[in-house]
Amino acid sequence: MNEAVRVYAPATVANLGPGFDILGMAVTEPGDIVTASFADQPGTFITRITGDGGRLPLDATLNTAGVAANHVRRQLAPHLGINLEIDKGLPLASGLGSSAASAVAAATAVNLLLGAPLTPMELLPATLEAEAAVSGRHADNVAPALLGGIVLVTGATASNLHPIPVGPNIASLNITLITPNVAVPTAEARSVLPHLVPFPTVVHQIKAVGQLVHALHSDDIDLFTSAMMQDAIVELARKHLIPHFEAARDAALGMGGLAAVISGAGPTLCVLTRSHAAANHIGETLCNAYAAQSINAVFRVVNISQQGAAQLP
Amino acid sequence: MNEAVRVYAPATVANLGPGFDILGMAVTEPGDIVTASFADQPGTFITRITGDGGRLPLDATLNTAGVAANHVRRQLAPHLGINLEIDKGLPLASGLGSSAASAVAAATAVNLLLGAPLTPMELLPATLEAEAAVSGRHADNVAPALLGGIVLVTGATASNLHPIPVGPNIASLNITLITPNVAVPTAEARSVLPHLVPFPTVVHQIKAVGQLVHALHSDDIDLFTSAMMQDAIVELARKHLIPHFEAARDAALGMGGLAAVISGAGPTLCVLTRSHAAANHIGETLCNAYAAQSINAVFRVVNISQQGAAQLP
Repeated sequence: MNEAVRVYAPATVANLGPGFDILGMAVTEPGDIVTASFADQPGTFITRITGDGGRLPLDATLNTAGVAANHVRRQLAPHLGINLEIDKGLPLASGLGSSAASAVAAATAVNLLLGAPLTPMELLPATLEAEAAVSGRHADNVAPALLGGIVLVTGATASNLHPIPVGPNIASLNITLITPNVAVPTAEARSVLPHLVPFPTVVHQIKAVGQLVHALHSDDIDLFTSAMMQDAIVELARKHLIPHFEAARDAALGMGGLAAVISGAGPTLCVLTRSHAAANHIGETLCNAYAAQSINAVFRVVNISQQGAAQLP
Repeated sequence: MNEAVRVYAPATVANLGPGFDILGMAVTEPGDIVTASFADQPGTFITRITGDGGRLPLDATLNTAGVAANHVRRQLAPHLGINLEIDKGLPLASGLGSSAASAVAAATAVNLLLGAPLTPMELLPATLEAEAAVSGRHADNVAPALLGGIVLVTGATASNLHPIPVGPNIASLNITLITPNVAVPTAEARSVLPHLVPFPTVVHQIKAVGQLVHALHSDDIDLFTSAMMQDAIVELARKHLIPHFEAARDAALGMGGLAAVISGAGPTLCVLTRSHAAANHIGETLCNAYAAQSINAVFRVVNISQQGAAQLP
């Protein structure tokens, strides 16, 4: 057995436009790092958290990393004790799957510490239990954080996780993630969703989702990015939660952005481009524009991560 | 130039469960045959219709074959005259794309008669104009009748037709089409659709559509047939239009049917099976059950047609 295991789990962009609750994509950065080691007494303990500005609970029953790690520990070695150190690379409540990344990194680290008897798919229950503790039992972030790539999620069990192959064209896309420093709690982002949807809008949405999944399988960038822009339900309901969303989106599309959507529940804006220079230019321009409105914002230019959570040296 | 051209266009099964208005599948049988030849005077003329029980209009402006043929004639050779003979293999108003098959066969026959300057994709406008004349401007039947296979339809132009590759597993499925002799006019079938859909049902439906398209691309029979059974909107609204629908569906599923859905607007029931014997057994049993209720019904066991409209010798 190892003395300590460090695991990196990636941020994830859920929805991809019209794919509400069903599509999630792992990106290369940012990510959370969780280090698991053996404790002297049975149980799961969080010994340190960095990068969270002191906002996350050290109580392992209230922290997604702690819940996920404890689930795996109980399953594999209930008599053992686990210490966790969490290094938050992800901003909290940013729409990048922060809670999922911590849960996935922790579950993976404990599994590896205990000799890796479980597959990534088999870590789904632990990570879903952790998600349920903070934001609802949804696998659209944990699944790509576990498995990498783009995952179609049709339910809350392993048989409902369907990795979609990412072809070379779509893998070549540059992704600019622009995160303004405003809080959009997941619960509020869910509360603004409509209760009833007009039937023609439903038909529009299923067309868009069909196109989205077909485009991914066809490795067709134009079809993919045009499908991403066709969400007619969720973005409309949520965009007022993100300051200057429409202006930012339109500016991004005017600077070479092929698609610009809210990542998860926001406020991160996810922009796809063919050119790395355009991706950087979009990030800089939008961060400057936010700054001019007295809103701090950060950006990263990343790629799709074909790899999910993985051990670090 | 040819003296006369005979073209067969296949029946099509639209929707495939949750894919309302966006998915259509060509089947090997039944089909319509249209024969096009030159007339002595400019214009498009229907000289004979067989197989329709005298129900279809000989006036070319009121008949989908006539409308589609005339569109192609006007486009390619407005000074010429075309005679059409229509042999209806498809039952009318059965949910099998009867108007689309006639339109596609006629447009294809005229194009071939005139030296085939247009591709099947380029015949879309003519066939859509014909559909619009009788049942609305929808391409979910004409697209697979033109192109064969399974087509994702996201709009009314050629760039919105996306053929989905049909792999060997899904191509091996047997399809039982059971058509009870009751009329379900397309207009009525559309009028019963809901005006508003609860948001959770929308999410369920986009999951189902995502799974359906993913399953087709993955050539996964289990995933495909389970997705087909997850329509939560359209079947619910329409099933009362088809006598004994639920009993028929459940009986089919009990006899080896992997999925059983309404074809198009009905009343044809489309059942998928792995075994040809089961497919026949389902057809016979359901037709007998309909007969016991004093409803005539016919069945056919067919396959997916990888080929769209094609010239006959």
